[in-house]
Amino acid sequence: MECDIVKSIMAAKIELVAEGTVTSPRGFHAGATYAGIKKKTTDSLDLGILFSEVPCKAAGVFTTNRIKAAPVVLSQQRLGLGKAVAVVVNSGCANACTAEQGLADAAEMASLAAKGIGVSQEDVLVASTGVIGQRLPMELIRAGMGQIVLSADGGHSLEKAMMTTDTVPKEVAVRVGESEFVIGGIAKGAGMIHPQLATLLCFLTTDAAVEIDFLKAALRQAVDISFNMISIDGDTSPNDMVLIMANGLAGGEVIRQGTRQADAFQQGLDRVCLYLAKSIARDGEGASKLIEVSVDGASSVAEARLAARTIVASPLVKAAVHGNDPNWGRVLAAVGRSGVEVVEAKIDLSLGGIGVVRGGRPLPFDKRDVVAVLTGNEVAIRLNLNLGSAAAIAWGCDLSEEYVTINSQYMT
Amino acid sequence: MECDIVKSIMAAKIELVAEGTVTSPRGFHAGATYAGIKKKTTDSLDLGILFSEVPCKAAGVFTTNRIKAAPVVLSQQRLGLGKAVAVVVNSGCANACTAEQGLADAAEMASLAAKGIGVSQEDVLVASTGVIGQRLPMELIRAGMGQIVLSADGGHSLEKAMMTTDTVPKEVAVRVGESEFVIGGIAKGAGMIHPQLATLLCFLTTDAAVEIDFLKAALRQAVDISFNMISIDGDTSPNDMVLIMANGLAGGEVIRQGTRQADAFQQGLDRVCLYLAKSIARDGEGASKLIEVSVDGASSVAEARLAARTIVASPLVKAAVHGNDPNWGRVLAAVGRSGVEVVEAKIDLSLGGIGVVRGGRPLPFDKRDVVAVLTGNEVAIRLNLNLGSAAAIAWGCDLSEEYVTINSQYMT
Repeated sequence: MECDIVKSIMAAKIELVAEGTVTSPRGFHAGATYAGIKKKTTDSLDLGILFSEVPCKAAGVFTTNRIKAAPVVLSQQRLGLGKAVAVVVNSGCANACTAEQGLADAAEMASLAAKGIGVSQEDVLVASTGVIGQRLPMELIRAGMGQIVLSADGGHSLEKAMMTTDTVPKEVAVRVGESEFVIGGIAKGAGMIHPQLATLLCFLTTDAAVEIDFLKAALRQAVDISFNMISIDGDTSPNDMVLIMANGLAGGEVIRQGTRQADAFQQGLDRVCLYLAKSIARDGEGASKLIEVSVDGASSVAEARLAARTIVASPLVKAAVHGNDPNWGRVLAAVGRSGVEVVEAKIDLSLGGIGVVRGGRPLPFDKRDVVAVLTGNEVAIRLNLNLGSAAAIAWGCDLSEEYVTINSQYMT
Repeated sequence: MECDIVKSIMAAKIELVAEGTVTSPRGFHAGATYAGIKKKTTDSLDLGILFSEVPCKAAGVFTTNRIKAAPVVLSQQRLGLGKAVAVVVNSGCANACTAEQGLADAAEMASLAAKGIGVSQEDVLVASTGVIGQRLPMELIRAGMGQIVLSADGGHSLEKAMMTTDTVPKEVAVRVGESEFVIGGIAKGAGMIHPQLATLLCFLTTDAAVEIDFLKAALRQAVDISFNMISIDGDTSPNDMVLIMANGLAGGEVIRQGTRQADAFQQGLDRVCLYLAKSIARDGEGASKLIEVSVDGASSVAEARLAARTIVASPLVKAAVHGNDPNWGRVLAAVGRSGVEVVEAKIDLSLGGIGVVRGGRPLPFDKRDVVAVLTGNEVAIRLNLNLGSAAAIAWGCDLSEEYVTINSQYMT
């Protein structure tokens, strides 16, 4: 069951690392600079590098959009061997819909970074985010690359270098108890967020020694319950990418399926991904609230996931939450169109813990009570289909006038 | 081909009826009153009846939302026999998610109308639109029903009685040349519009004599190229309903598959449905522009339709059009996630007739020119996938701050 996975995280011996980030695990360094790719603001950074002292096992999950950005194509290809030592990333330009020129530019960007840090360009992955359909400004990137200084607390700068409309950085690291390894991660994303098997940009690191097949499987499971369960606006980016690098510097037995640390590693990774995914949902463009939709009683996990995602992505549900409007009928309308099996007379629904529908019948409620729970900065919508035992949770945000303002003036 | 159907309409001998509406065909009468169901404004009407002097062949297309409003359940059931003489409709309350009580209320509403006009209640269909999850105020409906006066030009009042956030009425009638029959229609809808086999509310009438099986097939075809190709916000209502009533008062040979008038009837019906569907898209909540997305060169009509609908429903495309922002990458990102076959290197794209992508490569363009075409109140997006010969057209509207304002304060 979906929810068993989510709940099991609470049981693991995992502690947050203070000011944790992608460079918290041993042996990872990062740095960033302002190359001039995006508009300058006070603390602008737009080009950065993540680097491991020693070669890593590496895996990735990429956008399912049929239009794939050049850095996605290149990084996906390079990960075929399951290894990497560095990632170079820019914001301000997505290098998507740029044909062969885009691929050449992505390869040159990797090559410039590889030369700077003294590694093979084949071991460098590339990620980009920003406006689609424009070439990377290679002169600026060539000039900027030399200015990047790597350091063991450079994860914070790297996170800033990949933010676009994000208003807050999304960074976290956990130390997995009893064992001695750390898992860290950073992510960005505030619009064009409705991931299918990946999200905009997320880099994960660990100093655990992890066998490559287990690393891939663990990443996919963590992504499935986290990034694949958030939606900001129903649009999926051509640049979506989640990367994980495991450098093994924590020592110890190599973690693989069935070994002593496998569960703890999975739980730590789940927690990092859930934290980052929820941070993205909460920081949706123009958003003021995090919406959490739990669906129980579905006849399969796939149906539970689809129902939860459809509700959290409904513009009418999102607008109602924005206005603290107890218009619960929109939740039922959304699940009704989602395609999942629904028997109206069995549905239970609550908003912020207040029951509004039981067995398909509207319950009387004091409107002021519901308005009060909707006014909080986290809104819980719980739906029980009462048809089976499968469950899922999805996260999103409210839809505000500001979302429209941001997205009607993105290029101009 | 989809587009052949659309183009053939230009060839038919069809003329618009001046101030045409649902009562333009012979023998149809309508009327409406303000019963107090929705908030009073200057010329508020919220309860109305459409009536034919003689029994009609009747067909309908209904929402595919699994949550079906009581009037949808009742009307769908009553149309099993393929006949009707009247429709009673209210706005301000959707009578959806109201369990058995809702079905009883819908049946009583039909019964009240039937008594008033002296027909069997089994021949009266019911439609409702408005807030989901609240009971119909039956006291108000009982009192209001007696105040409705039917007349041969009452179609305009009936249209007003079913408007909610609509800002303009959607009414049309055409006289099909050489023959002597008229097809009229009215529609409402401005939010929760992403129909799947139907749209919010649309009533069509004709005085042509039409065999029931042909009437059903003709309605489905007309709906498929019109209402099923519009999207305002991606949400599908539980109350969607398109009804057609044919009373035969124009006389002449009964129209059926293969008869002389069959094509002309289909073309007239297509034209009425296209006009009403585009009117709904143009009047989307908060919208300032009509967006028309044409997709050519798809490998199947199903793929062309899916691509066109995905683009026209993308919140990021809609927000860019709102802001006159030539951010064409969002169009490719939307088609890329739509699930249709896409080869990036084959794509051609134009905005308002200005080419921006050819063979997957960005074309240089003067940004001011594209901004100028986007500033109009009709914006044409043309995409050629260059993979096959199937085509489709979809319509929608821009996404404005006002859409959010309207929908965050719908109930409160």
